Amino acid sequence: MIAGKTHRVAIVGGTGAQGQGLGYRFARAGHGVTLGSRDPARAVAAAAEINTRLLDSLGAQKLRGDTNEGAVAAGDVVVLAIPYRGYDAVVAGLPLSGKIVISCVNPVAFDSFGPIGLAIDGGLSSAAEQAQRLQPESHVVGAFHHLAAVSLSSGADYLAGEDVLVVSDSAQAKAVASQLAETITGRPGIDAGRLRMARHLEALTAVLISINKSYKTHAGIRIHGLDGAASTGRGATLDG
Amino acid sequence: MIAGKTHRVAIVGGTGAQGQGLGYRFARAGHGVTLGSRDPARAVAAAAEINTRLLDSLGAQKLRGDTNEGAVAAGDVVVLAIPYRGYDAVVAGLPLSGKIVISCVNPVAFDSFGPIGLAIDGGLSSAAEQAQRLQPESHVVGAFHHLAAVSLSSGADYLAGEDVLVVSDSAQAKAVASQLAETITGRPGIDAGRLRMARHLEALTAVLISINKSYKTHAGIRIHGLDGAASTGRGATLDG
Repeated sequence: MIAGKTHRVAIVGGTGAQGQGLGYRFARAGHGVTLGSRDPARAVAAAAEINTRLLDSLGAQKLRGDTNEGAVAAGDVVVLAIPYRGYDAVVAGLPLSGKIVISCVNPVAFDSFGPIGLAIDGGLSSAAEQAQRLQPESHVVGAFHHLAAVSLSSGADYLAGEDVLVVSDSAQAKAVASQLAETITGRPGIDAGRLRMARHLEALTAVLISINKSYKTHAGIRIHGLDGAASTGRGATLDG
Repeated sequence: MIAGKTHRVAIVGGTGAQGQGLGYRFARAGHGVTLGSRDPARAVAAAAEINTRLLDSLGAQKLRGDTNEGAVAAGDVVVLAIPYRGYDAVVAGLPLSGKIVISCVNPVAFDSFGPIGLAIDGGLSSAAEQAQRLQPESHVVGAFHHLAAVSLSSGADYLAGEDVLVVSDSAQAKAVASQLAETITGRPGIDAGRLRMARHLEALTAVLISINKSYKTHAGIRIHGLDGAASTGRGATLDG
């Protein structure tokens, strides 16, 4: 596994394709993972399926399944991998105080013209910012918005064609998300600034979906020009 | 030069860093370029400087300088490379009817927290869409938002670390922008969907600026997963 602290990761919405894919990747890298779901039986079944797969390849890495609340209670890092519909109510109801909360939620709508990013609060907020507002004692990060579920669940060691852009007002939370990103892409996450930049990252997903539709592919995004550069963290966080 | 039609490209705001960089690239590829400016003397001087550079490297490629209105009148393709401040008035006053109009304008604001994409009309519009609304007889494309001026003006044959994302409701305009993109990156532009996706492309510039600030670099964006894939154009344009 990647060097660094081992986390107990709770995935809210852990039975969705994105949640299962992230859970698979994090468990494979040695982190403890609990898949949460409104229906804990489904979460237990999904965890068992991934466990079987991990036993085949890497040994006895274990995922658990639980309710969303139970998963969160057992985690120090919480990944929100739920649909945007109903998001506020779910987030407000979870025991997230003191936790690092990673939102990969993408508020994207579809109409006859294709996908379009939703303008949250007139374009002045984002799902990640809403989580921070609803749970002011948590440390919210935006990350993992752009990874195709099919790539996450693939057997590839790393997703070489993808970068994970990480935004937060907390340097500590950014560092944790960046470390988790490295288990997926083989490279640390990219510091893309303050939490409010999540507005732009979430909407970018609509662009990738549009490209996927036109090219019949699973497009990934990479940032070039950072080779060997280390983030200065300058002006990018409140506590950094 | 790249195979394809030779265009007469007018660059509105052609004395800015972005405008000069694009003009240099397009002229180098064999297109006729007129740099436009409110101050035509400055446009003539900028054109002369780039001409000197092109003579050194490639022979007698010629750029001209003119007023913005004069440049537009002489062009079949118009690039809007102006600041967002005052954008509406400039666009409304230009003779753009019937032209292909490429907007690379990025409505980005800066405050003590860094850059942030402006929410145009409550997040439901973009500079490119505004141009289309103001000039309904033109064919507006959003493209070239994310290319660093310093890279454009470099001597590199192609900007290998960059992709040009192209959005429009006109398939013809998209094709022209895509061909022009190829003169810069060595690869055709990427069809990223309808013109409204410009909301997301314009805002993404704020993310790249934030990354540049943290890493002290000029970051570029590349889309992976398209190798060998051709756009189907499915659902992506009105006239395609």
